[in-house]
Amino acid sequence: MSKPPAESSPVSPLEPDGATVRRMGMRILDKLADWVDGTPGRPVLRSDGSARAARRMVEPAPEEGTPFPGLLARVMNEVIPVGLDPASPGYLAFIPGGGLPHAALADLLTGVVNRYTGLWRPAPALVGLEVAVLRWMCGWVGFDGPDAGGILTSGGSIANLCAVVAARDHAEVDDLRTLVAYCTAQAHNSVLKSTRTAGIRPSQVRTVPNDARFRMDPAALAVLVAEDRAAGRVPFLVVANAGCTPVGAIDPLGALADLCAAEAIWLHVDGAYGGAFAMTARGQEALAGLDRADSITLDPHKGLFLPYGTGAILVRDRARLQRSFTVQASYLPEPLVHPDHWDFADMGPELSRPARGLRIWLPMKLHGVGAFRRALDEKLDLARVAWRRVLELPHVRGVAAPELSLFAFRIEPPGRDADQVTRRVLREVGKMGRVLITGATVYDPALGASVFVARVCVLSFRTHQAQIDALLEDLSMAIERVVASG
Amino acid sequence: MSKPPAESSPVSPLEPDGATVRRMGMRILDKLADWVDGTPGRPVLRSDGSARAARRMVEPAPEEGTPFPGLLARVMNEVIPVGLDPASPGYLAFIPGGGLPHAALADLLTGVVNRYTGLWRPAPALVGLEVAVLRWMCGWVGFDGPDAGGILTSGGSIANLCAVVAARDHAEVDDLRTLVAYCTAQAHNSVLKSTRTAGIRPSQVRTVPNDARFRMDPAALAVLVAEDRAAGRVPFLVVANAGCTPVGAIDPLGALADLCAAEAIWLHVDGAYGGAFAMTARGQEALAGLDRADSITLDPHKGLFLPYGTGAILVRDRARLQRSFTVQASYLPEPLVHPDHWDFADMGPELSRPARGLRIWLPMKLHGVGAFRRALDEKLDLARVAWRRVLELPHVRGVAAPELSLFAFRIEPPGRDADQVTRRVLREVGKMGRVLITGATVYDPALGASVFVARVCVLSFRTHQAQIDALLEDLSMAIERVVASG
Repeated sequence: MSKPPAESSPVSPLEPDGATVRRMGMRILDKLADWVDGTPGRPVLRSDGSARAARRMVEPAPEEGTPFPGLLARVMNEVIPVGLDPASPGYLAFIPGGGLPHAALADLLTGVVNRYTGLWRPAPALVGLEVAVLRWMCGWVGFDGPDAGGILTSGGSIANLCAVVAARDHAEVDDLRTLVAYCTAQAHNSVLKSTRTAGIRPSQVRTVPNDARFRMDPAALAVLVAEDRAAGRVPFLVVANAGCTPVGAIDPLGALADLCAAEAIWLHVDGAYGGAFAMTARGQEALAGLDRADSITLDPHKGLFLPYGTGAILVRDRARLQRSFTVQASYLPEPLVHPDHWDFADMGPELSRPARGLRIWLPMKLHGVGAFRRALDEKLDLARVAWRRVLELPHVRGVAAPELSLFAFRIEPPGRDADQVTRRVLREVGKMGRVLITGATVYDPALGASVFVARVCVLSFRTHQAQIDALLEDLSMAIERVVASG
Repeated sequence: MSKPPAESSPVSPLEPDGATVRRMGMRILDKLADWVDGTPGRPVLRSDGSARAARRMVEPAPEEGTPFPGLLARVMNEVIPVGLDPASPGYLAFIPGGGLPHAALADLLTGVVNRYTGLWRPAPALVGLEVAVLRWMCGWVGFDGPDAGGILTSGGSIANLCAVVAARDHAEVDDLRTLVAYCTAQAHNSVLKSTRTAGIRPSQVRTVPNDARFRMDPAALAVLVAEDRAAGRVPFLVVANAGCTPVGAIDPLGALADLCAAEAIWLHVDGAYGGAFAMTARGQEALAGLDRADSITLDPHKGLFLPYGTGAILVRDRARLQRSFTVQASYLPEPLVHPDHWDFADMGPELSRPARGLRIWLPMKLHGVGAFRRALDEKLDLARVAWRRVLELPHVRGVAAPELSLFAFRIEPPGRDADQVTRRVLREVGKMGRVLITGATVYDPALGASVFVARVCVLSFRTHQAQIDALLEDLSMAIERVVASG
């Protein structure tokens, strides 16, 4: 039987009528309601049987259909539970991705109506909604001019790619091999990936030394730029971190903006993790100078707690994106001239794209910016509390204090390999299943060496004081065990 | 009031409990059920008041919240209806995007659980599911080797970008300015956008002449390649169309594969529109040689009828993608070695990404490949019927017969400007609101000039014989009116 009758209309199995869509949707909602209510009690990590579970999924394409309830049960019971749960309140690893259910509900709507938002004309009001969301973001980061703009991408990596390509084209060199970009060793791996994608080799991306707080050293940058200019190379791009992934450092944006302005170098700020904090008063202060960047990456699927699938590139002058990405075609309508009618296809690498605006607009309109600001402020508070309490644990040395909601530390019992001890402690904490934290290898100027650090990133919208308490209890116990086990 | 009480749990407005998610979801499902049932009766295009509707959306960021029912009503009544409806059965314009409701329901699930699929370890079974889907696709296009693979992207443009970057790096030149790519004038605009993004200038993309059926001329290609080699340039990439956007032509894949193999040039087939037809017997035949490509772009949000948001790049040897896109980071786990455990971040430009597998897997498992094959076969039939009947209309000259489900024609009344008449007829048909078709400007070898053609593309899963009948009625009436009006 190729058409499970319960899930298809008489017309065609691919064309369920409204009642069928509602019925299937309600089944999914029932499962998801249970899943949401069960979230606090589930372990953050379930790695047993991973390989087996994955192997079971690799099966031949099915010629015939399978009834829906069994498929849904399989997905919820065998597929989803295996691995890491970034939607868990105890997920303090990497940079937490969100999972705001309202955004997922918005996606359901977006998918069924399937409007096309690559260009303005096919969906003027839906594009208008997305333009509104982008203008809100521009406002938060201080891009207040009428030419400011941007696009929503699938994530921070494509946003960084847009910035690199626009900066590259803005430099107007004939030979790409002459270009030089700058960032610290803490830059996100998408910076190197984006420059490579854009035809700029890894050797053309120079690592600028950082200070003891892992922030780019502007004086050191100035020296490198002068050196490159003297050698006939063309410095074209500085990528500054606004909350780097390994330890959370914010590069000195004001000083870098001064230097980039004087040297006519494009300043891109990678705020995939930290940029959203510009919505808060403390974030504004920590990110001073952000509004002087040429372009900024935000990741609403991190800092605005959305499910994966939405990053943003914001630019002070959107003509710079248009210059790089506008390509005409014989089958497309004429480009637009009205300043509020944006053709997103002319500002980024995509032509077809999912409509990404509603998943931000709906939760923002529903709860107001205030609710998001308060949630981000809570994460700032939690990180500060956690940092102070972690420093009180035995053998802990703080490596990077939280500038926003991310900090790093090491466990250094006398006479022991601190890298190894720190790794073992992370594993022990993970096994307890209540919270998950991960580490990174960084060059620590205090030690003059590369070291492995544990890091805590508080950015899940479900993380509250209870998870910080759990972190401290489990970390304390893990340190005790690992140190005792010798 | 910042927290509409009906939509939030006691914890935080951003953390609805299961009951709240279910309640909100059911409200959306009710609206969508009505929307789905109302689809056949709605006009394909609603352009009145577009600018006003768009302007209304651009409003300041809301500090406080707004109750959900009003927001939902606003979206359904004021935002969604304005513009083109690609989910309409009468949408025969451009390349129709899908909107299969099952895929949208899968996205709801994906969004709420928010698993991370950029790497294998965090979601082994969900990545396994996506690997399975990619293996199915590889099977359909004839990539049967154990090294074949690919990734799901946001659409065809990013898929083409992956191919261009991989081909560029495979060529191993020091100076990108020496590279030359080849395509016909019918290539999708993302080919030029992708090469530009990858650091290859428009002047390095050569237009290969096409034959009278708009297919790339392999002999002409051979001449260009020889010319470029003699001038010291490096031919590195041929982009062949498998169903070009303007007129639906399929380039001679076998002959091009011969030439590319002999010349060691990467053959990329852009099958964003037509690749999915490889699932059918007639498609297999029309696409003979497809399996000899180095890489193939498919767009499941077109040919598999999914909502926008899913393209695919398939490669015969996935190490070639890995070579271009693998970038290590201090905070990421070690790369994988098991052949079935794919880290998607190492095969494309994204690190964070939405999980795109479930939106294909669920409808495929639910209805079986057979249901999709039958639907594609139906579209092939409909296009053939439509083509024959359109040719019987007065003043119509066929320009491109359907190789798959897309064809092109002109309306050429004696003594009249055929471009203008054809454009006016398209507008008249659009005004009637039942079907929408669009045009393109192509160089017609039969006339030795660039001409505007009307085109019909049958790819909506909701399009059946009734819409073809409507097309013929409305087209017939429009031709009569326009010709009579002089």
